[in-house]
Amino acid sequence: MTIYYSLDLNNETFVLRDLCVDDYSKNYLDLLGQLSKIDKEQVKFQDFLDFINELNERNKVFIIENKDTDKIIACATVFIENKIIHNMGKVCHVEDVVVDNSMRGTGMGKILMGFVNEYANKMGCYKTILDCAQHNVVFYEKCGFKNNGFQMSLYHSSL
Amino acid sequence: MTIYYSLDLNNETFVLRDLCVDDYSKNYLDLLGQLSKIDKEQVKFQDFLDFINELNERNKVFIIENKDTDKIIACATVFIENKIIHNMGKVCHVEDVVVDNSMRGTGMGKILMGFVNEYANKMGCYKTILDCAQHNVVFYEKCGFKNNGFQMSLYHSSL
Repeated sequence: MTIYYSLDLNNETFVLRDLCVDDYSKNYLDLLGQLSKIDKEQVKFQDFLDFINELNERNKVFIIENKDTDKIIACATVFIENKIIHNMGKVCHVEDVVVDNSMRGTGMGKILMGFVNEYANKMGCYKTILDCAQHNVVFYEKCGFKNNGFQMSLYHSSL
Repeated sequence: MTIYYSLDLNNETFVLRDLCVDDYSKNYLDLLGQLSKIDKEQVKFQDFLDFINELNERNKVFIIENKDTDKIIACATVFIENKIIHNMGKVCHVEDVVVDNSMRGTGMGKILMGFVNEYANKMGCYKTILDCAQHNVVFYEKCGFKNNGFQMSLYHSSL
């Protein structure tokens, strides 16, 4: 498994790596549960495996793991869209960013977003975009983002 | 080519269909130019062909064409993201929605967005999301969307 980044904080070692199939039995689903309701019983191992197998260099899930506790403490999903505008430009979309409650304010979120932006840049994207709630605007501004529009959503009631 | 939808307006016939390779020589690039700067010389036929060839049921470009003038008067790109949250849910992302200047206020944008939502529903998405500028919020509200957050963006200066 590729370790993209490793750092020490308070005598503990953290690594930034791709999500992998073993993370099903770690706390990845619990971490996502801090973002959105998730029924762990409904996420079968096979579904998770299928999800992992579809990931590729244009659709990644990056996580930060505490190597001393084996606990995943941050995650972010990216996918890269090919566009025609901006001269066949590419855009990096970021989704489902979570930093574990216990690790907020430690700078891990900023490290993760910095890595995401490096990745987007390396992949030739002209911009990185994401949507967030109002109370997270300040965090993303600290990561170099600017508010540039409004997210609109429509829920499909038949599901 | 599949025609999803056909309607008459002021004695002219409009069809809703997938973008296809012949649209390179129609006005699709000019239409996108109403959304964002586009240098037509930079979009080579081969690039356009590669873009079309990568489209699939999870990444579509829908267009509305006036069959009497062969002019494309509206377009929207969709791509469908597999998630783990919402019990392995899917989200439909909508990008690059344009209605030709001459056709605004005719209801074509609403027809296009209605079709996009039908498509998202058929594909099993629990929601459809998009980002827009403030002056377009009212249009999307008329299409059933609600403002649900802020778009943040970071431009990569090395490109």
